[in-house]
Amino acid sequence: MKKGRLEAFSDGVLAIIITIMVLEMDVPEGHRFGDLLEVLPVFLSYLGSFVFIALYWVNHHHLFQSAQKVNTKILWANLNLLFWLSLMPFATAWLGRKGQYNEKAPVILYSLIILISGLSYKLLVYLILKNDGADSALARFLVNDRRGILTGGLNIAAVFLAFVRPFISIIILVLVAASWVIPEKSMNRAFHSAGHKKKQT
Amino acid sequence: MKKGRLEAFSDGVLAIIITIMVLEMDVPEGHRFGDLLEVLPVFLSYLGSFVFIALYWVNHHHLFQSAQKVNTKILWANLNLLFWLSLMPFATAWLGRKGQYNEKAPVILYSLIILISGLSYKLLVYLILKNDGADSALARFLVNDRRGILTGGLNIAAVFLAFVRPFISIIILVLVAASWVIPEKSMNRAFHSAGHKKKQT
Amino acid sequence: MKKGRLEAFSDGVLAIIITIMVLEMDVPEGHRFGDLLEVLPVFLSYLGSFVFIALYWVNHHHLFQSAQKVNTKILWANLNLLFWLSLMPFATAWLGRKGQYNEKAPVILYSLIILISGLSYKLLVYLILKNDGADSALARFLVNDRRGILTGGLNIAAVFLAFVRPFISIIILVLVAASWVIPEKSMNRAFHSAGHKKKQT
Amino acid sequence: MKKGRLEAFSDGVLAIIITIMVLEMDVPEGHRFGDLLEVLPVFLSYLGSFVFIALYWVNHHHLFQSAQKVNTKILWANLNLLFWLSLMPFATAWLGRKGQYNEKAPVILYSLIILISGLSYKLLVYLILKNDGADSALARFLVNDRRGILTGGLNIAAVFLAFVRPFISIIILVLVAASWVIPEKSMNRAFHSAGHKKKQT
Repeated sequence: MKKGRLEAFSDGVLAIIITIMVLEMDVPEGHRFGDLLEVLPVFLSYLGSFVFIALYWVNHHHLFQSAQKVNTKILWANLNLLFWLSLMPFATAWLGRKGQYNEKAPVILYSLIILISGLSYKLLVYLILKNDGADSALARFLVNDRRGILTGGLNIAAVFLAFVRPFISIIILVLVAASWVIPEKSMNRAFHSAGHKKKQT
Repeated sequence: MKKGRLEAFSDGVLAIIITIMVLEMDVPEGHRFGDLLEVLPVFLSYLGSFVFIALYWVNHHHLFQSAQKVNTKILWANLNLLFWLSLMPFATAWLGRKGQYNEKAPVILYSLIILISGLSYKLLVYLILKNDGADSALARFLVNDRRGILTGGLNIAAVFLAFVRPFISIIILVLVAASWVIPEKSMNRAFHSAGHKKKQT
Repeated sequence: MKKGRLEAFSDGVLAIIITIMVLEMDVPEGHRFGDLLEVLPVFLSYLGSFVFIALYWVNHHHLFQSAQKVNTKILWANLNLLFWLSLMPFATAWLGRKGQYNEKAPVILYSLIILISGLSYKLLVYLILKNDGADSALARFLVNDRRGILTGGLNIAAVFLAFVRPFISIIILVLVAASWVIPEKSMNRAFHSAGHKKKQT
Repeated sequence: MKKGRLEAFSDGVLAIIITIMVLEMDVPEGHRFGDLLEVLPVFLSYLGSFVFIALYWVNHHHLFQSAQKVNTKILWANLNLLFWLSLMPFATAWLGRKGQYNEKAPVILYSLIILISGLSYKLLVYLILKNDGADSALARFLVNDRRGILTGGLNIAAVFLAFVRPFISIIILVLVAASWVIPEKSMNRAFHSAGHKKKQT
């Protein structure tokens, strides 16, 4: 089965998810700069979620660049991923409403959706890997996926931390997202030197 | 006529239908987990309709994978299918409003749209089959389409049952949808053994 | 310049236009079939506009199937067409509001947008024809475009009639749209026999 | 890395941005032509922003027509551009609300988003140029990009002018946008003769 339509459909869904979030930004009633302040929390949530969905698009792009072919299981694993990502605008809007960055429930929901999206992506990678055969280019990537494991761990931590210190969860999620925008190579170097420092301590 | 743009346009429309349904989920006023309860019926409707549209996308994908070429009649049969699927967000929203899972009218409308979508899809398959010639790969599929006939029968039952027991219709629709997510092969095996059991009884 | 992205972008815009119109259908407050009556005028407007946009997509599809290449002028003529078509959801919603099928202003606006869309499409066809050279497959089509001229004439009539009898304009627009759904060939035959009858009378 | 998906995703996002702006046009309560007057400011903002997004699409189209390949940096520069363009519907809606064409804040925000979008586009062009190598077709374009520099200058002027005479900023932005719709060649000729006139004065 060719991968063209899976890519096209995913592009369509991700393009819509990333764009409809801006609709949550209600136009302020007044016409002064001060009136923009009421939109600020929604804007920051929008910015964060834009980067988040963008990250998934870039990784999805790389993933299917190397995938050779797809099967029905991969179609469904991809749809599963898109489902969780499609809940992002809702979670973003709840978080952005009156800037509930320090309320437990909105932050837990937000962290949970990010965590489940991550696991869904992992499942997709696994199925593509299995479909292409273990000696493909992806195999190497998966075995040493230190970044992915670290991300998952920090994500789980964010969910639990949100029960006591929601704002710290937000900071963790922002840092994790930021770490993914930095290209793989410079990341690996950073990991290495960080590892060396740890050993020395 | 090439099939590329028909696929691209369908991908676009289905991507929008599947995604705008999430806009029906209004953000709750409060900031506790309990406040999410008011969104639950809409969420369940969204989940169900996401799976439903996803099923159509997967089947549409398989269908046009095997189709060799398209003609103007096929373009219109496809647009007809997209029209009925586009009513899904409306029917979903009505069903989800205050969880009207046991009200006659919303359930009948929902079952009807699912039934008409199924018939529209069937028409599309028929026209592609006719266009490609009876000896194509699709011919074999159509003759033995036991799953399709069973689905159609259960769908019609769901419409009529909704007049007396709307909730049972919902359960039937969920089971039918679930049966389609399971791949064709394991399905056939299940059908076979079920047929054997029936004969033995 | 290749035509791929012009097609992809147009598919995207048309897919969105055709789908967001369904968002105008507000879910009724009640849960009986009678409550659907308040949605009926919006539904009928939606149906009409869906067919209208679908017609443009089918024709756009055929047009660029035969076009060999595009230039910047064609890009802009295409964007001009998309602009007028994008006003369709607004005009549809105004017409559908409380079923204003017999109010002058909504019907005039609706007919005008249909007329301008038609002229914009004509301009696009002309530029493609000029770009491909007069001996292309399109040249033959344009010279004998009796259907297009008749459509244009009826469209102009609809705009003016809307000032006195808006409802008759609606009927004309429905008939014209219906005439385009019928394939070209059977249309030509109908034209011919109608022409013969006229001569005989 | 191939450029196909970057183009497809950009087409999707731009198609949505250009189309959802029309959703800001609320249907008037009344059914007379006079009632359309309340929509006029939003319509004019929509028209302006449609042309603006269309310009970016046409230029994006030309840019990637000549680009040979893409890398991860280019993916992110493109996403950065799409982010700023996605704020357009919000800025448009604020500007269009009760026709705030002479209020400072909405006009400054609008001009700023246009300016930042321009810079983001410039960055994208630079990265593509660097990736393709300096001897590519783009190099020639960049060195003599008098139009781009003039646009940037007028844009910065529009931002500052908006603090004292917002309406004049609007006029400048309209004129700059209009100048881009005119094809490159006739533009160059106009620049030339204008330059000659300046020297003669």
